[in-house]
Amino acid sequence: MEKTIEKKRIYTGKLLKLNANKVRLPSGRTSFREYVAHPGAAAAVPFISENKIILIRQYRYAISGNLLEIPAGVTELGESPEDTITRELIEETGYKANKIESLGWFYPSPGYTDEKIHLFKASELQLIQKEPQEEIELVEVLFKEALLLIEKGGIIDGKTIIALLICNHSSI
Amino acid sequence: MEKTIEKKRIYTGKLLKLNANKVRLPSGRTSFREYVAHPGAAAAVPFISENKIILIRQYRYAISGNLLEIPAGVTELGESPEDTITRELIEETGYKANKIESLGWFYPSPGYTDEKIHLFKASELQLIQKEPQEEIELVEVLFKEALLLIEKGGIIDGKTIIALLICNHSSI
Repeated sequence: MEKTIEKKRIYTGKLLKLNANKVRLPSGRTSFREYVAHPGAAAAVPFISENKIILIRQYRYAISGNLLEIPAGVTELGESPEDTITRELIEETGYKANKIESLGWFYPSPGYTDEKIHLFKASELQLIQKEPQEEIELVEVLFKEALLLIEKGGIIDGKTIIALLICNHSSI
Repeated sequence: MEKTIEKKRIYTGKLLKLNANKVRLPSGRTSFREYVAHPGAAAAVPFISENKIILIRQYRYAISGNLLEIPAGVTELGESPEDTITRELIEETGYKANKIESLGWFYPSPGYTDEKIHLFKASELQLIQKEPQEEIELVEVLFKEALLLIEKGGIIDGKTIIALLICNHSSI
């Protein structure tokens, strides 16, 4: 347990809020804790058939490169994680998922951010929008191929690795 | 591809650096990209016997709670990921690992941070320090039990989930 002595908001951005709080450690010493406050996110493995999924390839500015990921997005005010992923799936892939099953949730980097990511399996997909709005490339792959891509280092995004391995582990 | 028009460093902290850069999108529009620059980290699943591992329970200020995790730490200047995890294992558990095998690496949250986490399997452990320095509790569990904890929501830290599932997936 660490007791907050002083709260300091460094930055309030569009997506991120940065805090640097002064805390008292259990030992009695004081220290600083820098962390990012994040609204949370939701992501899903969209099954377009029993053994085939849709991945997206998109540019990620923070790492200056393209990544192969499952569709995902940041939670907007008032949304449930299911609402978020249903909306994002349509925006990013054009598909509405008529079946959404929870795969659990996790903290991607609890050492410095409170972000939670909720994971889902999405199925019974229905194409409702022909041109997805965001600048992303859709990539259909066999679920088994996606697992191989993790082994080969072709999938290096944390939420994507977790969602695929959990789908596989639980034999959904 | 997004072209950086203007770089702005918002904050330079002990651990994190926050940037809010102005970029030109492929469409020609301009936008802002907020991201955290992070030195990177390394984590390992330490096998104390063939089927038993050491986890740590520690307080995480960002999420105001205790988490069950594999040992891990931030890379210090000049260190390789192997150096980092060897040092952190000793600091956090008291054990030196005489065998370190790579399980790959991943980006925990590439939407807003460049942090990379390198994962390892650590074995042939040798107790060299009786009292670990950090305020953490050591928890020995069967590897199989740790997998069940993921299913039950008892392990919700991203790097820990990935490392355990990859150990299991690759049947190491």
